[in-house]
Amino acid sequence: MTRTVLESATKTVVIGFDEPFCVIGERINPTGRKKLAAELELGDFSTIEKDALEQVLCGANVLDINSGAVFTNMMAKDPRYADNNFVEPPLMKALIEHVQSVIDVPLCIDSSVPGALEEGLKAANGRPLLNSVTGEEERLEMVLPLVKKYNVPVVAISNDDTGISEDPDVRFAVAKKIVERAADFGIPAHDIVVDPLVMPIGAMATAGRQVFELVRRLRADLGVNTTCGASNVSFGMPNRHGVNAAFLPMAIGAGMTSAIMNPVRAQEMEAIRAANMLMNHDPNGGEWIRLAKVMEAMKEGATFAEASRAASASSSGRRGGRRGRG
Amino acid sequence: MTRTVLESATKTVVIGFDEPFCVIGERINPTGRKKLAAELELGDFSTIEKDALEQVLCGANVLDINSGAVFTNMMAKDPRYADNNFVEPPLMKALIEHVQSVIDVPLCIDSSVPGALEEGLKAANGRPLLNSVTGEEERLEMVLPLVKKYNVPVVAISNDDTGISEDPDVRFAVAKKIVERAADFGIPAHDIVVDPLVMPIGAMATAGRQVFELVRRLRADLGVNTTCGASNVSFGMPNRHGVNAAFLPMAIGAGMTSAIMNPVRAQEMEAIRAANMLMNHDPNGGEWIRLAKVMEAMKEGATFAEASRAASASSSGRRGGRRGRG
Repeated sequence: MTRTVLESATKTVVIGFDEPFCVIGERINPTGRKKLAAELELGDFSTIEKDALEQVLCGANVLDINSGAVFTNMMAKDPRYADNNFVEPPLMKALIEHVQSVIDVPLCIDSSVPGALEEGLKAANGRPLLNSVTGEEERLEMVLPLVKKYNVPVVAISNDDTGISEDPDVRFAVAKKIVERAADFGIPAHDIVVDPLVMPIGAMATAGRQVFELVRRLRADLGVNTTCGASNVSFGMPNRHGVNAAFLPMAIGAGMTSAIMNPVRAQEMEAIRAANMLMNHDPNGGEWIRLAKVMEAMKEGATFAEASRAASASSSGRRGGRRGRG
Repeated sequence: MTRTVLESATKTVVIGFDEPFCVIGERINPTGRKKLAAELELGDFSTIEKDALEQVLCGANVLDINSGAVFTNMMAKDPRYADNNFVEPPLMKALIEHVQSVIDVPLCIDSSVPGALEEGLKAANGRPLLNSVTGEEERLEMVLPLVKKYNVPVVAISNDDTGISEDPDVRFAVAKKIVERAADFGIPAHDIVVDPLVMPIGAMATAGRQVFELVRRLRADLGVNTTCGASNVSFGMPNRHGVNAAFLPMAIGAGMTSAIMNPVRAQEMEAIRAANMLMNHDPNGGEWIRLAKVMEAMKEGATFAEASRAASASSSGRRGGRRGRG
């Protein structure tokens, strides 16, 4: 069975067909979070540290670290700040150092900038996940050598130089090409985590079925783990959490093994924990029963993060998310 | 594609591979509802009528009518009331007449008593679903002739004279036997709705995966629609609605086409509506958007039934659940 092994300083997380669904927390991302970007511009990493802890308390197994910030004030003073190749590498290093100073879980290094990916690889403890390679020629030639050099797994997004195809067969073919090219570099399929690309259901009515079918094929034919930006599916719809909370169990049932998502949302995490149990990936329902207590506490007004923190404080040996196996 | 056609006086509901998930409301059932049984004993059908309306407002497409009452006071006066063959046939007739007097949706006639099934078949308008036959010899010989005589579809529960097997291969074999025996009577596979039997996940950790796999096989190999008592899966677990609300989308993703369940629960109905949309069975997300408005109203304190009633009153031509196609 396919196993993608991630490590932090002392913890191991396995993404795999026989493992609980791997939740990759998406919150550490200044793209589209103006307030966070402004804080980072001032060298304030307090929100980052808080978000790191909170996501893990709520159930994130891995933390995505995205360095895509735009520093508008700096840019006004120094034109070099208009270039992400200038901004992101030191920012990625700083983000990772701050996160690792407060929490010990594997990281997912997320940037479009080659220099930021390499700085991240240098700064991260253990065996992080690299995010991402695509089927674009330039990207393949840039990222795969890094994957090989640092011996890390990589997220492979199924678009290429022609863009994102609406045809699932084309997206499968792109994923296959990436796996083959990776093999040329000596990178095994179990270190490729394919993102088949989730379209918004409001824009494409077949988006859900496409993903479920693609996940089955990717797993059966290529033997790879899979991931996705889960909340894309509900973009533009009312009651988005309700859509996400049905999409995730369906994706898990189809064989998806991880997602990059917001773990601070109780409805989605409830759906994932139930799906884990229904897939026989939660021995004796232990994680489910633990979550049920957290949700019980939420009825008295606590947020999911607060209730999760209280539950974590009252138990022992469980901090830092999934129990370590390292 | 397999289509099981149900009818009321004027409405048609199709259970099918290309249809939205069919919700069969389970509330009209005096078994385990002591207060309801006591009301029925006094000839009071007001709760029945209220429950019928409420379930359809909340999204039931079909109403299950179960006549399994125990009339303890009557029994004390008249020993004949200890016999379900005496109690159920007239009760089934009365239940159906009362339900049909307030709502026009197809019914599911649910009894272990042959006389009650036949009284139900006589009393029901249109083309009801008969619930149920099993693989037990006596039951096959008793129910299949009724199915043939009245030309109705039937729920086939995959247990036999040896009981309920924990082995999914045995449950598949029982379903296959029922389909074959039905064929001997001239009853087509598309009129058999197989219940593969959902075990409690707390008692059998493989219960979820068994059902998902069985549904795929039943659909691919026998070409039949499927149903289940959905809430069984969460029996004995905390936060049961959370388990059910993940189970249902997973079952739908695996190909299950109906369930006998409580439609007055918002969490489960939200999961089903989202799953319908993700399966491309909700054109333009119309039903999802309608539900999102109902859930918005619930934030101000309304129950699901109240909010559904208000939404129904403010729209038009939609009463009686799924839009009629007859």
